[in-house]
Amino acid sequence: MSSLPASLVDELSALLGDGWLTGASERAAHGNDNSRRSALPDAVAVPSTREQVVAIVRACRAHRVPIVARGAGTSSTGAVLPTAGGVVVSFDRMNRILDIRAGDRCVVVEPGVLNGDLQRALAPHGLFWPPDPASAELCTVGGNLACNAGGPHTVKYGATRDNVLGLSAVTGSGELIRCGSATTKDATGYDLTHLIVGSEGTLALIVEATLKLAPLPPQRASLRALYLDVASAAAAVSRIMAQPVTPAMLEFMDAACIRLARDVGGADIPDAGALLMIEADGDAATLPHAVAVLAHAARGAGLLSLDTAPDEIASEKLWAARKALSPALRSIAPGKINEDVVVPVTRIPDLVDGIQALAREFDLRIVAFGHAGNGNLHANILFDPDDTSQDARAQAALPRLFALTLALGGTLSGEHGIGLAKRDFMVHAFDPATLAAMRAVKAAFDPDGVLNPGKVLP
Amino acid sequence: MSSLPASLVDELSALLGDGWLTGASERAAHGNDNSRRSALPDAVAVPSTREQVVAIVRACRAHRVPIVARGAGTSSTGAVLPTAGGVVVSFDRMNRILDIRAGDRCVVVEPGVLNGDLQRALAPHGLFWPPDPASAELCTVGGNLACNAGGPHTVKYGATRDNVLGLSAVTGSGELIRCGSATTKDATGYDLTHLIVGSEGTLALIVEATLKLAPLPPQRASLRALYLDVASAAAAVSRIMAQPVTPAMLEFMDAACIRLARDVGGADIPDAGALLMIEADGDAATLPHAVAVLAHAARGAGLLSLDTAPDEIASEKLWAARKALSPALRSIAPGKINEDVVVPVTRIPDLVDGIQALAREFDLRIVAFGHAGNGNLHANILFDPDDTSQDARAQAALPRLFALTLALGGTLSGEHGIGLAKRDFMVHAFDPATLAAMRAVKAAFDPDGVLNPGKVLP
Repeated sequence: MSSLPASLVDELSALLGDGWLTGASERAAHGNDNSRRSALPDAVAVPSTREQVVAIVRACRAHRVPIVARGAGTSSTGAVLPTAGGVVVSFDRMNRILDIRAGDRCVVVEPGVLNGDLQRALAPHGLFWPPDPASAELCTVGGNLACNAGGPHTVKYGATRDNVLGLSAVTGSGELIRCGSATTKDATGYDLTHLIVGSEGTLALIVEATLKLAPLPPQRASLRALYLDVASAAAAVSRIMAQPVTPAMLEFMDAACIRLARDVGGADIPDAGALLMIEADGDAATLPHAVAVLAHAARGAGLLSLDTAPDEIASEKLWAARKALSPALRSIAPGKINEDVVVPVTRIPDLVDGIQALAREFDLRIVAFGHAGNGNLHANILFDPDDTSQDARAQAALPRLFALTLALGGTLSGEHGIGLAKRDFMVHAFDPATLAAMRAVKAAFDPDGVLNPGKVLP
Repeated sequence: MSSLPASLVDELSALLGDGWLTGASERAAHGNDNSRRSALPDAVAVPSTREQVVAIVRACRAHRVPIVARGAGTSSTGAVLPTAGGVVVSFDRMNRILDIRAGDRCVVVEPGVLNGDLQRALAPHGLFWPPDPASAELCTVGGNLACNAGGPHTVKYGATRDNVLGLSAVTGSGELIRCGSATTKDATGYDLTHLIVGSEGTLALIVEATLKLAPLPPQRASLRALYLDVASAAAAVSRIMAQPVTPAMLEFMDAACIRLARDVGGADIPDAGALLMIEADGDAATLPHAVAVLAHAARGAGLLSLDTAPDEIASEKLWAARKALSPALRSIAPGKINEDVVVPVTRIPDLVDGIQALAREFDLRIVAFGHAGNGNLHANILFDPDDTSQDARAQAALPRLFALTLALGGTLSGEHGIGLAKRDFMVHAFDPATLAAMRAVKAAFDPDGVLNPGKVLP
């Protein structure tokens, strides 16, 4: 059944015992992700120690067998699919929080710990780890590290790469390396730490991470601003980001999203050309001022209404429209391509205009929402995958969306990564010399190309 | 006079015209830095365009001639010394600010612009670039990028690596690459941007950078806290860093520094075991609260006195002791090794205790001060280089200081980099596998080893 060399199977089953899985259902369970694609591995390895990870990589490398690291499989880009077969390495058993160092504002973890579990362990210390993807309750820190995950709080606190101090990782050569340190300042040699973050398991398997933490703000308050059009909302985003009170979240929804949230999601919200949800965090003494400053910046040409929620309960009500959106999207369209492009914030109007033009040209429903403070919009192409013509039009619109993003000085992904889904568009994002440099880096870490082959680089 | 191949000289002098310098004084002027070492280049190239930089690298590579990029030569580690001869590439003529994009909170610059000139150009837009090394008026942005420079504001705003969005750079293969983008979120391919930052000209020559900017806070206020001993001050640092009001600066001075600032520098300050200077920034509405919160965190066991400066004039007076320190150090010791180690903040007391033990053991005067919020202390070994015995003891104490730092979970450099000065200690900071990975990265960018040979990696 497995096409793995017998000697490799013998070696790894002896090494891993019940952490070596070859059953059909176990292989299938490790052969899919949130991209709705699938591909079967030949086996699943579930190591308990870094030494086992080293041994797995060395054994697979000796046989040129592909190795695909896997957290919880929430990738939306196919990044964890074993498309070339081989061994999926699951980090389910390496999920410990090793050391909460509150005085040093950092935590040492194994990669398999869930983001949500980590946050709960940190909260009693008054600390949190800033990356907050929508899948936080399900996804692992290792997966967050692999794809440089973000989330709404990124606008103030940074994405995953901004919140990692050090790593231990096993390269494609089967060598355990240690980079970075438990310090917030480091000018010692090459920064391998931030290079490995976002490399989607193609350079090394992370076996331990030292994460940078932030103090939990005691209170939050929200603003909801409705605008006549996207240009007015985008101008407000620039004004908000140009003053010193950085919002804790700054989320955008276009007119189509607002209608969906109301008509399908049941949110209490009037029609508008665009919406901004703005969150401030702080404490009782500063929050009113932060809200006032953010409200002032949100005001300007094209503002239709501005609602303030002074506390968390009122906030929940204001955020209802944003929260109603994702279920509403799921309910109206059986197929959804959730794109994750980024543009400089001043180009948001051009991006949204361009998306609307694409929707007309390809006769598709495309809605846009997302993390406006970072210019990171999720363009959702809604279609019926059983309708061959719609499916073809949706696939045809995608390259045009990427071309538009790049023409605006943006980039292909803000927080989902490249995986399989955008691999073939990398040639448009980077010139041949830059791609060649990335390939040379890949070869430096993984000379035989055994780590997650076929991902990221075209 | 020059040992360069005649055909290379012909090619580069034709390419660069008056940007090709071979006179003895010009070579000498480009053969030193702030490390008090020197080494003569064979020639100095002063390109005006990125195309010229590409041509210089390709020509030198063809002849295996070393290339050393140079900003203003303020490196304190010998990083810009052409110890293997060859061509120094000065970025004096590539010093333009290309595009201030206030709405996108970024600026596009050439590497030769001075940090201080950039700040003055940004101030009218209400923005600043956070890296603020002591040499800001003299040093170039390219130099800041090369060594991942920091400064006192790093504790709140991050160091150079944290404030760069994208780069154009010429690799050792003579290829122009473009990485990153004018966006604050990027999960697209390998992060070459932050890898090149801090690589000290050994991977690529930066020809353009897109820098992340921060809004200028309208007001500042300062606190001066004196403590019985270092342990009390370090505990206060942990308390300050564990709550949500991050100080804009958090500087430390040990007892010896306090005495020097008073007795030699003339500062009005009583004796104490340790001093913290704490700066808050914000606006009129929030600053009093920030000061109150920071003062609360500064209070605790061992606090001797706490002085508040509510405005900039009073702040200047409080900061006088810190500012008097560097001139005082220069006036009392002809020789000074200004080390730049980093430890996790909770290990500051162990570091300072260890430094005092080294001072006793080697019969040397060693004082410690620096950026406590990041655990980045400057251990200054004061000695007379003309006194052979003292000089030898100072050199012998250095490896012990590094060993102490590493044993405390720290790292060799926080903001000065490695250069020549710490190159041979890299084997203690990293295991062979990690150094091998760094060497593989070096080979990927610079296969013939022409870029700044002999620096960073042992």
